[in-house]
Amino acid sequence: MCQLLGMNSNTPTDVTFSFSGFAQRAGHTGDHCDGWGIAFFENKGVRHFVDHQRAVDSPIADLIRHYPIQSCNVIAHIRKATQGVVSLENCHPFVRELWGRYWVFAHNGDLKDFRPRLHSHFHPVGSTDSEHAFCWIMQELAKSHADVPSIPELTLTLRELAARIAPHGTFNFLLSNGQALWAHASTHLYYIERQHPFAEAQLADEDMRVDFSTQTAPTDRVAVIVTAPLTSNETWHPFRAGELKVFVDGIACA
Amino acid sequence: MCQLLGMNSNTPTDVTFSFSGFAQRAGHTGDHCDGWGIAFFENKGVRHFVDHQRAVDSPIADLIRHYPIQSCNVIAHIRKATQGVVSLENCHPFVRELWGRYWVFAHNGDLKDFRPRLHSHFHPVGSTDSEHAFCWIMQELAKSHADVPSIPELTLTLRELAARIAPHGTFNFLLSNGQALWAHASTHLYYIERQHPFAEAQLADEDMRVDFSTQTAPTDRVAVIVTAPLTSNETWHPFRAGELKVFVDGIACA
Repeated sequence: MCQLLGMNSNTPTDVTFSFSGFAQRAGHTGDHCDGWGIAFFENKGVRHFVDHQRAVDSPIADLIRHYPIQSCNVIAHIRKATQGVVSLENCHPFVRELWGRYWVFAHNGDLKDFRPRLHSHFHPVGSTDSEHAFCWIMQELAKSHADVPSIPELTLTLRELAARIAPHGTFNFLLSNGQALWAHASTHLYYIERQHPFAEAQLADEDMRVDFSTQTAPTDRVAVIVTAPLTSNETWHPFRAGELKVFVDGIACA
Repeated sequence: MCQLLGMNSNTPTDVTFSFSGFAQRAGHTGDHCDGWGIAFFENKGVRHFVDHQRAVDSPIADLIRHYPIQSCNVIAHIRKATQGVVSLENCHPFVRELWGRYWVFAHNGDLKDFRPRLHSHFHPVGSTDSEHAFCWIMQELAKSHADVPSIPELTLTLRELAARIAPHGTFNFLLSNGQALWAHASTHLYYIERQHPFAEAQLADEDMRVDFSTQTAPTDRVAVIVTAPLTSNETWHPFRAGELKVFVDGIACA
């Protein structure tokens, strides 16, 4: 299985602290060693990094740990291959364009017998069940709306689509178009909303602390979504099975 | 105006030497300072790096100069903004998926009054004439062929499409789907084919030499395509105006 990390905020924020702990699970505190990836929205643009090496060794992951890229929507993934060989084209997150916006998707879990026919313009490049599901979601979104819908409308459509995929297996996913971040859980997913007054956080996966109060303004809001809690001294909220939440400006809206 | 760099080879090859000289033009030997980008195919997968900083300063460009990513098809671009603001979504190269393959495109030049209606599934995310032209090419390719055609068939279609865009301005471009690299010139574009016996090369933009004979096997073949010759002691072949060449396995095929 894989692990997911997402971040949504109301002001451009770096994820070096969270990613540092998360990347430990790709070889040190976990065995998710079959590639990794991360995507950062910067307005409508995306910085997309994928690597088939372990995130603990990868020179690109090392850059991400130390170069504070500022973003309001981030999706990261470390992979333990279950379906699809270890190769660059099978690394999450995946990116597609729809309605003149990039869409970024990462999945944790296994889907059995979910290979619906893709009759539109979205086709997987790699061989994973995850990318196939993403292409189907993009196809169905394109059929459901003529142009980029409002976030509440998108959330309704995504709830319907997720409910059609989830019975086929484990379907925890993160999706963003740069305006919001959607998170769906069928098994393990947690989130935290950090806001004023900010406090100190201690990573669970390595001996590293950060005092967010020294790095933030009182109006900042940051939500972090992850497969298993990243810090040992904060309260993380578990998703219910089948729950889809949308995060906008650092807050879970629904 | 911008500058282009492409590499096509028959064995995975790094472009650290060429990119090092090329990146000098983004602040030192040239003023192409409004962002840069590079994409590396790895089989069907793509590593895609874009940055709106100058390539001479960017920490990501520094990684690319020093981390030898191996690839058979590379496209890089340094931007001097003429149309579209300086932002991440306007940085070349652009990537789209068609027929289950990624397509990577970068453009040098200006197109006047070329905004054809995009009635299919490819839409620009940014505001450049270049991304609009790329989306139109993708749309027309999708209409012309039912699935990934052969390289000669693609070359014929691309010649027709390039001839319809080129009258609108300057249209030097590089395009790759990981199987081949297409290069079209309307003004400045040069190429070189390196093969056995390999020799020493001296960068034109900085004091750096490399002896390719120590880094290659006798069967290796590498073609490099660039806006202006990268080395001072080799013979670069200029493209004719309106010429489209396709490079496969390190050789110009047509």
